[in-house]
Amino acid sequence: MELLKQRILKDGRVIGNDILKVDSFLNHQMDVALFNEMGKEFHKQFAHKNITKILTIEASGIGIACIAAQYFNVPVIFAKKTESRNLDSDAYLSEVFSFTKGKTYTIRVSKNYLNSEDTILIIDDFLANGKAALGLAHIVEQSGAKLGGIGIAVEKGFQDGGKLLREKGFDVKSLAIISSMENGRLSFTE
Amino acid sequence: MELLKQRILKDGRVIGNDILKVDSFLNHQMDVALFNEMGKEFHKQFAHKNITKILTIEASGIGIACIAAQYFNVPVIFAKKTESRNLDSDAYLSEVFSFTKGKTYTIRVSKNYLNSEDTILIIDDFLANGKAALGLAHIVEQSGAKLGGIGIAVEKGFQDGGKLLREKGFDVKSLAIISSMENGRLSFTE
Repeated sequence: MELLKQRILKDGRVIGNDILKVDSFLNHQMDVALFNEMGKEFHKQFAHKNITKILTIEASGIGIACIAAQYFNVPVIFAKKTESRNLDSDAYLSEVFSFTKGKTYTIRVSKNYLNSEDTILIIDDFLANGKAALGLAHIVEQSGAKLGGIGIAVEKGFQDGGKLLREKGFDVKSLAIISSMENGRLSFTE
Repeated sequence: MELLKQRILKDGRVIGNDILKVDSFLNHQMDVALFNEMGKEFHKQFAHKNITKILTIEASGIGIACIAAQYFNVPVIFAKKTESRNLDSDAYLSEVFSFTKGKTYTIRVSKNYLNSEDTILIIDDFLANGKAALGLAHIVEQSGAKLGGIGIAVEKGFQDGGKLLREKGFDVKSLAIISSMENGRLSFTE
């Protein structure tokens, strides 16, 4: 998506060879007009899947998911992160390892809001190693719902997540795929 | 706001005398069509304040704030919660005590995204004891921005937060104010 790539080039900050800060428009301050263009693009990519619900994860996926949901006319559910591993019979749970924080947390979604009649679109802001998306897909699987696809704003194409998810047969669409950011220079996969 | 009150009566679950679960439409599963009606109402209440940015707090304020922002044509910033008290010279910080979790956490907003030219609307899903809103107002104050108002979806009118914030002179508008929920029965302040 050209608009998003241009915005990343203009306002993204590369730190070292693998950190991209986009907190001026994507995941701290949020440009809701840009999110609307992203939402339209996700709808174009996934409209034929007859999505019934969008699933995301707190916190930075929520804004993008809510704006996108307006084009699908479906509700959004966000998975909650917790450090507790207590069993919770009312929720679908999965374990996600965060490389950023160096620890594993549990994500949970109430069983009330996903069921076998649903076709789910997972939306998130970033895809790097794929752990969060895999955790969300695992929750969808437990619920018996169909996974319609995975929509990502920014994929770090030089990390393994995208390959891993696509090899599992998931329909992953990323609006911008970064192929490299060595020496502070960003390049995208066309 | 009649639509929200009716929805709370229909789908809210009262537990004991002071817990209201609205996770089927407000803060776990999110009804984005309802959020749009709430966003229009916030805009009606605060349009004359010439709001330049909306400030909220992760996680459950983000969806409502992003949808509302479309009516104001402004960006949204969400304050991040952290347990670390490390000084961070690039961020405005405040301490918030959570009664739900029984602990104090630090909230932070990058100094890049708030300044003295801004007029801020704080938006959040719940107002009970007011600690989160006070923390956000404290961050606005540090930045030199003007606080245009505080928009809340559901206020627990039988707790102190609303009184506290209004006594400080803040322009607080809540879309639904619950006056009591004793014995499982909800009543609203007109």
